[in-house]
Amino acid sequence: MAKVGIVMGSDSDMPVMAKAAEILDKFGIDYEMTIISAHREPDIFFDWAKSAEEKGIKVIIAGAGKAAHLPGMCAALFPMPVVGIPMKTSDLGGVDSLYSIVQMPSGIPVATVAINGGANAGILAAKILATSDPELLAKLKNYSEEMKNDVVKKADKLESIGYKEYLAQMK
Amino acid sequence: MAKVGIVMGSDSDMPVMAKAAEILDKFGIDYEMTIISAHREPDIFFDWAKSAEEKGIKVIIAGAGKAAHLPGMCAALFPMPVVGIPMKTSDLGGVDSLYSIVQMPSGIPVATVAINGGANAGILAAKILATSDPELLAKLKNYSEEMKNDVVKKADKLESIGYKEYLAQMK
Amino acid sequence: MAKVGIVMGSDSDMPVMAKAAEILDKFGIDYEMTIISAHREPDIFFDWAKSAEEKGIKVIIAGAGKAAHLPGMCAALFPMPVVGIPMKTSDLGGVDSLYSIVQMPSGIPVATVAINGGANAGILAAKILATSDPELLAKLKNYSEEMKNDVVKKADKLESIGYKEYLAQMK
Amino acid sequence: MAKVGIVMGSDSDMPVMAKAAEILDKFGIDYEMTIISAHREPDIFFDWAKSAEEKGIKVIIAGAGKAAHLPGMCAALFPMPVVGIPMKTSDLGGVDSLYSIVQMPSGIPVATVAINGGANAGILAAKILATSDPELLAKLKNYSEEMKNDVVKKADKLESIGYKEYLAQMK
Amino acid sequence: MAKVGIVMGSDSDMPVMAKAAEILDKFGIDYEMTIISAHREPDIFFDWAKSAEEKGIKVIIAGAGKAAHLPGMCAALFPMPVVGIPMKTSDLGGVDSLYSIVQMPSGIPVATVAINGGANAGILAAKILATSDPELLAKLKNYSEEMKNDVVKKADKLESIGYKEYLAQMK
Amino acid sequence: MAKVGIVMGSDSDMPVMAKAAEILDKFGIDYEMTIISAHREPDIFFDWAKSAEEKGIKVIIAGAGKAAHLPGMCAALFPMPVVGIPMKTSDLGGVDSLYSIVQMPSGIPVATVAINGGANAGILAAKILATSDPELLAKLKNYSEEMKNDVVKKADKLESIGYKEYLAQMK
Amino acid sequence: MAKVGIVMGSDSDMPVMAKAAEILDKFGIDYEMTIISAHREPDIFFDWAKSAEEKGIKVIIAGAGKAAHLPGMCAALFPMPVVGIPMKTSDLGGVDSLYSIVQMPSGIPVATVAINGGANAGILAAKILATSDPELLAKLKNYSEEMKNDVVKKADKLESIGYKEYLAQMK
Amino acid sequence: MAKVGIVMGSDSDMPVMAKAAEILDKFGIDYEMTIISAHREPDIFFDWAKSAEEKGIKVIIAGAGKAAHLPGMCAALFPMPVVGIPMKTSDLGGVDSLYSIVQMPSGIPVATVAINGGANAGILAAKILATSDPELLAKLKNYSEEMKNDVVKKADKLESIGYKEYLAQMK
Repeated sequence: MAKVGIVMGSDSDMPVMAKAAEILDKFGIDYEMTIISAHREPDIFFDWAKSAEEKGIKVIIAGAGKAAHLPGMCAALFPMPVVGIPMKTSDLGGVDSLYSIVQMPSGIPVATVAINGGANAGILAAKILATSDPELLAKLKNYSEEMKNDVVKKADKLESIGYKEYLAQMK
Repeated sequence: MAKVGIVMGSDSDMPVMAKAAEILDKFGIDYEMTIISAHREPDIFFDWAKSAEEKGIKVIIAGAGKAAHLPGMCAALFPMPVVGIPMKTSDLGGVDSLYSIVQMPSGIPVATVAINGGANAGILAAKILATSDPELLAKLKNYSEEMKNDVVKKADKLESIGYKEYLAQMK
Repeated sequence: MAKVGIVMGSDSDMPVMAKAAEILDKFGIDYEMTIISAHREPDIFFDWAKSAEEKGIKVIIAGAGKAAHLPGMCAALFPMPVVGIPMKTSDLGGVDSLYSIVQMPSGIPVATVAINGGANAGILAAKILATSDPELLAKLKNYSEEMKNDVVKKADKLESIGYKEYLAQMK
Repeated sequence: MAKVGIVMGSDSDMPVMAKAAEILDKFGIDYEMTIISAHREPDIFFDWAKSAEEKGIKVIIAGAGKAAHLPGMCAALFPMPVVGIPMKTSDLGGVDSLYSIVQMPSGIPVATVAINGGANAGILAAKILATSDPELLAKLKNYSEEMKNDVVKKADKLESIGYKEYLAQMK
Repeated sequence: MAKVGIVMGSDSDMPVMAKAAEILDKFGIDYEMTIISAHREPDIFFDWAKSAEEKGIKVIIAGAGKAAHLPGMCAALFPMPVVGIPMKTSDLGGVDSLYSIVQMPSGIPVATVAINGGANAGILAAKILATSDPELLAKLKNYSEEMKNDVVKKADKLESIGYKEYLAQMK
Repeated sequence: MAKVGIVMGSDSDMPVMAKAAEILDKFGIDYEMTIISAHREPDIFFDWAKSAEEKGIKVIIAGAGKAAHLPGMCAALFPMPVVGIPMKTSDLGGVDSLYSIVQMPSGIPVATVAINGGANAGILAAKILATSDPELLAKLKNYSEEMKNDVVKKADKLESIGYKEYLAQMK
Repeated sequence: MAKVGIVMGSDSDMPVMAKAAEILDKFGIDYEMTIISAHREPDIFFDWAKSAEEKGIKVIIAGAGKAAHLPGMCAALFPMPVVGIPMKTSDLGGVDSLYSIVQMPSGIPVATVAINGGANAGILAAKILATSDPELLAKLKNYSEEMKNDVVKKADKLESIGYKEYLAQMK
Repeated sequence: MAKVGIVMGSDSDMPVMAKAAEILDKFGIDYEMTIISAHREPDIFFDWAKSAEEKGIKVIIAGAGKAAHLPGMCAALFPMPVVGIPMKTSDLGGVDSLYSIVQMPSGIPVATVAINGGANAGILAAKILATSDPELLAKLKNYSEEMKNDVVKKADKLESIGYKEYLAQMK
């Protein structure tokens, strides 16, 4: 049974939302993923957001761009955490999406991550579920170790080959 | 029968929304005015927005601040024009409200006016109705004359008393 | 007889303004479309804006970029609604155009849509005309259905092929 | 045993952080609250953040202003969710705090709420805990009902006394 | 015969525009000063701007706030320099006025000064006239000396009384 | 004898500054053009700015990017008008250059044009000189006519071929 | 002999610059403090900045607001570190000062601190001198201890009296 | 023995950080350069920052992007100057990095340079060391001469070939 609902307002958000799904796949967390526009199909959206709880969903990850209402409207209808991902926009860089998602009025928070922060939304959903799932918490700690090791390897490489060679290999 | 619906998400927006009502009063346009939060009472909001058309409403004026979803969600549910008023906010000056209202996705426009532009929202609603109401159009033209005369009077006063005296009288 | 006037300050705005025209074509709304610079040919502009009403125009759609004065000056001269489209700019992303169009002083509103929001300007003009045209209103409702169906189809596709395949097909 | 840790970098943040504590009090959620500066006492901060898990803490609420590093550094050291509150600043309005908290790199999310969003941080923490606590979830639903009723009452009042009297009573 | 025209769109701009007039008074430059709204009385504005040249005006100083079109429209109608003053605004701080004035399209420059820069607009107008008026140029050089002496006096005071006493005397 | 000095801080500004030179060439205005960095060679810069007047220069056009001090420092040293061109920057779009040039303190104005507004700087310099040069003023009026005709031609073309063909020819 | 030069462009900056002087007083570092405007008295400024080195000055602390050129011009003339303090401005909050100081071109860095960061400028100057002065370095470490103790005391107070009482005592 | 520590949070910052290293190479200043993430490996980071002093490091150059905590956390742990480089970001242009680095709280300054200002960070570190190293100071003065000569050569070239040819050769 899906524990996380991933929803985006447009399939143009897919490359970012896929990053969230990949993280949930990695941690073995069940999720359902769909495209629903709060603006273009408000009824379908309402039904989906209202039925999420009874389907067993504990966290919703919602991504949207520009006047990004999807995460906030999810938070109005779903009683557990909603993680919001502001999409980068071609004109304002995503500051419009960010303000539309993070500046929620008192009573209806959206847990906002960075612009285009698909992976972080997945990790945050996992951390939320890990508050009552020690096995998942252990996986998250392992993941932190992996990230640490990746940086250590890069530092070692830099020390051994020097910055000029490092730069040359980056090209 | 009300032709305009005025809706705000919080009664803290009342001073700005009242300016819209005053304009409609001035032009003799029937309206209904209410407080509905799309975030705190989404069901009530949905019912209101969906029933607006059958109540005879032709234009909705919606004001909201911060992550201002009310105008955009009205536009998703109501088939005729929605005029959006971004509220000034104490931290970001209202640029958050502005982006959340004006940057709507393709298909769902909100006719956005200036930050705290309550009077202009009323005038824009009147102009929309005036596209099919010659009497109202005549009133709007009179209103333009009044505005013009106000400025002319100020210019005359400045010419007759000079800027120093004018400034002194402003204090 | 044209019901909508589409005007832009420079032919570099054509790709965005064409989106508005396409919407009006789709809804069978008569319009005239021209290029007039309020800055470079103020007399021609004045004549055009002042004669719009007697030509039967009910709504003007005006697009402009940077210090975008065209929509606001239309609103100063034409008594019915003016829809303003802020053009994206290469340096400031269009926030200059947006502020120059939306922040109109009390008395002279411009119904502002999103940066580069050509299609939304066309839809807003149609919604304005639909306040007195039930047939057009019905077309707008159909259009909403079409938009809804487009999203539903995408959601179905995502459900059937999964996000990895969906992403692969997007490239 | 405290389930939530509330931490702020300076006691000037207390008025905002107190809003989070009041929410937790209301829902009967145990918490500990302290003042620790990641910049001025990094060792104390490290010890606190690292020992939070073994003290039973499931969620950290961290508030900070300007170059607000406290929430992000908590997220680097604590494996479960960190909720970040960007403080309003006197010069930049809090956009500096917001960017410093929300724009976290991949791997280390902070669940960011609105500028000065103390109450929302408390509610978000409660929603996170409610993913595994049905009793708390029921309380949150009741809280939503209360918020809804508050707005309904205001709408009723507006309907009964009109906007002019409503405004008069606000002063 | 007036050599400078000072024009503002609203008498709320008077405190800033008066600073420009004071500078012209100081340098003995003839000017006329008026209030004309390009938005509220476009015909009057057109006549004024077009007749400025034949009245002997060589420079126009125009101030406006928000979607500040007055300076740019002056520049469209008057063939000599237009100096624009962006007014500080209560919500956006004047960045809206600044962009609306400075970001003029190619062909129609406005010589923009700082937000609320009334005195600088007067000085710039004087500098423009001084390109063909050696006597005025000499006055401007004297004015620079005065400014220099003012700073030198403050430095001397600081050196003699120290910063603590200096601060105390500022309160 | 050169009447205008064109100065830039770096040869990377040449494409924009060349636009100013082309305008002066077109109007037959003598100018000298050079590259001087106020930051990298302050002594050379001081000598150049101080000797400009005696070389007959009446207007300086100065372009600079980022923390753009060149125009303001010219204005501190040269008693007649300085026209400032803020360069577009790759990270902040030129808003840094704009603020550094336009926000001059009282007493030292810089006549600021749009970001990358090279041509407008040239036109503004010409307008300044035209305040005492009727022949140049006539040329400027002709130039305005040319601009007007260019737009009229485009409008005619649009009317004759329609927007679809117009767009097709733009590609 | 003064090791630090403190310079401001206007005595309105004194309250912020005094914070830097207080820090230097606290650490027993000799300094000279003056008011010099790079714009209003460029010659005096040049002489001061060029003679600073021979007077024994090792670090300059320069504060300025709006189009803040003083720190950058110091850096062009003085071969050792210049610490820049961007002043808060009433219209743009200080983002204009910040960009004008921090965005220096390659070759001429200014060590920029926070908006209105007078104390931090003093501390940074002390840290720079401490790179070759072990006694001063020890004082800086003591200062860090003091800051740490201040926060610890506040945390203790909060723990003993609770947030409600703490808040009450803040008023 | 290394006198400067260069540290970056991610190897994607290498192209900018390499510019700092190249400057130090040019001046013959010993440095160590590494990749350490304060977020992904806080323990390693703590150890590195705390042991820097005993390794002889006098200045740390730290670069980071987005919610850039690395420079500020270095400044919390290292008692001598930390130079911070804000990285350009793809969505917000680097204003997020800039605010996260420059807006440090009182007591913990970071000497911030321009967005992507790698070379300037190297030069600033050299200037700091030059406060007690006359030989290095002499090298810095030579470097200033070189920069001056580069500009003079460009000015000479412009004078000899004219701007049209200069532009042509730039392509």
